[in-house]
Amino acid sequence: MTSLTILGSTGSVGRRTLELVRHFPERFRVEGLVARGSNLDLLIEQIVTHRPRVVGLLDESAAMTLARSLPSPRPEILVGSEGIVGVAREAGAQIVVSALVGAAGLLPTLAAIRAGKTVALANKEVLVMAGALMTAAARSSGVGILPVDSEHNAIFQCLEGHDRANVRRVFLTASGGPFVAMPREALITVTPSDALKHPTWRMGAKITIDSATLMNKGLELIEAQWLFHLSLEQLQVLIHPQSIVHALVEYVDGSVIAQMAMPDMGIPILYALTYPERLPCPAPRLDLTQVGSLTFAEPDTEKFRCLRLAQEAAKTGGTAPVVLNAANEVAVAAFLEGWIGFLRIPELIEEALDHHPTRALRSIEECLSVDDEVRRRVASEIGSTAWAATSRAGGV
Amino acid sequence: MTSLTILGSTGSVGRRTLELVRHFPERFRVEGLVARGSNLDLLIEQIVTHRPRVVGLLDESAAMTLARSLPSPRPEILVGSEGIVGVAREAGAQIVVSALVGAAGLLPTLAAIRAGKTVALANKEVLVMAGALMTAAARSSGVGILPVDSEHNAIFQCLEGHDRANVRRVFLTASGGPFVAMPREALITVTPSDALKHPTWRMGAKITIDSATLMNKGLELIEAQWLFHLSLEQLQVLIHPQSIVHALVEYVDGSVIAQMAMPDMGIPILYALTYPERLPCPAPRLDLTQVGSLTFAEPDTEKFRCLRLAQEAAKTGGTAPVVLNAANEVAVAAFLEGWIGFLRIPELIEEALDHHPTRALRSIEECLSVDDEVRRRVASEIGSTAWAATSRAGGV
Repeated sequence: MTSLTILGSTGSVGRRTLELVRHFPERFRVEGLVARGSNLDLLIEQIVTHRPRVVGLLDESAAMTLARSLPSPRPEILVGSEGIVGVAREAGAQIVVSALVGAAGLLPTLAAIRAGKTVALANKEVLVMAGALMTAAARSSGVGILPVDSEHNAIFQCLEGHDRANVRRVFLTASGGPFVAMPREALITVTPSDALKHPTWRMGAKITIDSATLMNKGLELIEAQWLFHLSLEQLQVLIHPQSIVHALVEYVDGSVIAQMAMPDMGIPILYALTYPERLPCPAPRLDLTQVGSLTFAEPDTEKFRCLRLAQEAAKTGGTAPVVLNAANEVAVAAFLEGWIGFLRIPELIEEALDHHPTRALRSIEECLSVDDEVRRRVASEIGSTAWAATSRAGGV
Repeated sequence: MTSLTILGSTGSVGRRTLELVRHFPERFRVEGLVARGSNLDLLIEQIVTHRPRVVGLLDESAAMTLARSLPSPRPEILVGSEGIVGVAREAGAQIVVSALVGAAGLLPTLAAIRAGKTVALANKEVLVMAGALMTAAARSSGVGILPVDSEHNAIFQCLEGHDRANVRRVFLTASGGPFVAMPREALITVTPSDALKHPTWRMGAKITIDSATLMNKGLELIEAQWLFHLSLEQLQVLIHPQSIVHALVEYVDGSVIAQMAMPDMGIPILYALTYPERLPCPAPRLDLTQVGSLTFAEPDTEKFRCLRLAQEAAKTGGTAPVVLNAANEVAVAAFLEGWIGFLRIPELIEEALDHHPTRALRSIEECLSVDDEVRRRVASEIGSTAWAATSRAGGV
């Protein structure tokens, strides 16, 4: 029986994780749940179903509503940033699923690592913003960070059993998003609703836009650097519109090991929870004769400038990925709100990278302070401080 | 430094193995070479280059010519069936590359296994005819049989590091040969030269015809059963005309691990020789953006009856795969000589399977005797005993 704490239980990865817990009641039990507080009805349902010992809520006012609405026996409820950090390091959990979106995931994930818990990582910012700090903490606590993201989970599976010293290159695949076949000039007319039509995966709005700009793949390159100790030169992106091959690892002898699966998050989540075992995942099975054809192409980094900006930030290191990520998050939120056009996203990121001199990062607090500074600046650049305040509350 | 004995040094796998030895002189040295004797000039060149301590020749008259033609210092030369068995168990070799074609490979491969040598296996008949005996001998000697065939080598790589108890299915890919898109009715007009045009691999005539009938994949299913302890229900064939994905292993969780590489035998040979290490193989590197598209389809076992016959023989077990293999070998030779049409190949095999009652196999000698009996019978069925005698001398 594996006990889990889920940071971000009402998000898409959190919900899918709890579906798996329900599917394998003899294998998993829920020790703690953490949510932002924006979907209290769902959180209450999750608490009633899974009976966690402890619940953390980021939003303090939501916590009071929660306490009033829950039937007894009630779980312990911890509140605010410190509260969710407390839940993350609770003694009862063996695995912490880190699936909060945004910078809010950093401190609780670090707390879980320091408390010696295996982290099943779905939060991108944890490694994009603080890869050096997180991997150093994991090394010194002797705990594993198991990737839940389908591409990184695929890389992890393709490396398993093979000597990492023999890796020549690693390919992350990208569907290419809805605009992969559109001429560059046409991107200027793209609307949020066009960009939200992802061809293969159903995900939240932010990550769907990141898929359309290829920033998602850029952030994944940065994560992969940290997770697998790879140089940027070893990491390549392949456009693969079918989203069946999630990653490929090329070894020095010319053998390429690939992981394929239907695009269903249940598969990588379950692998991270059961590693090194496997359980029969309730997910559609891959039938290559139905898929018919798998295609691969180079990404166009002239057209998708966000990918190139991410590669450059990865090479620069230090604060550069923090700046990239914060500027992107504000720009994407502004695009979704209709404040800026699609092609303004990479422009704002590039301006932010140009403006913020790169320096080394020594603490999570420093990450968060750079993050905050960049968000304010990009928001004021966009021109609405009112909107910027909203964006920060929602985005952090 | 790994010392090798190569059974079948003048065949395509033997030649490629020696190219790798030349490429990595600090890693490999040649202890013994075994050849049939049909290409003495090449064998002499190999002996002069690699200076093996011992050489085995199946053909006794060729042995005398060889002894006269070699400059000193001459290697020890062993002759005939017993001679090549002697070379296979020579103390100096750590790995024996079993790459003789046909039943002639059985006794020397068994001798190598019993002498405790790791076997890099390229000879199909070893497992098709005597899978139970060979794998039992390997278990009791505690030695590994490492597959050199690209498909089995791919399965081996896809299983490495993963729990075999979690395997749901294994897919062997087949190019489908030159007739994959031809209507069944048109197969009646197929000539040997049509059938020898393999779309992706350059191989010997026998195996190229086996690729065109899909018998090659049928024999590989039988080999895979033995190599990986899989049931026939777990083994599937996928038509994949590009020959880039060599095999795929589906695990219970829905993850599929695939091995891909350019179609070059150097890669699987080198992996078998260096396992669990890898060396940079002198072979073309896979560039999926150049390949563009990978396609997959179900095989048509109505059209390619040889595949279904092989599946049935695999299910039956005992002598059935021996009968299948012997009948196929005589039928293919007769087709190549122009004695029979392409569609007569599966008919002859089916008649042989119907005629020979299945029984269990207790020894290699029994395998060889059933093999001989089937060959004679199929040859006399074809109608030329003179041709049959020639075929046996060449085919065994």
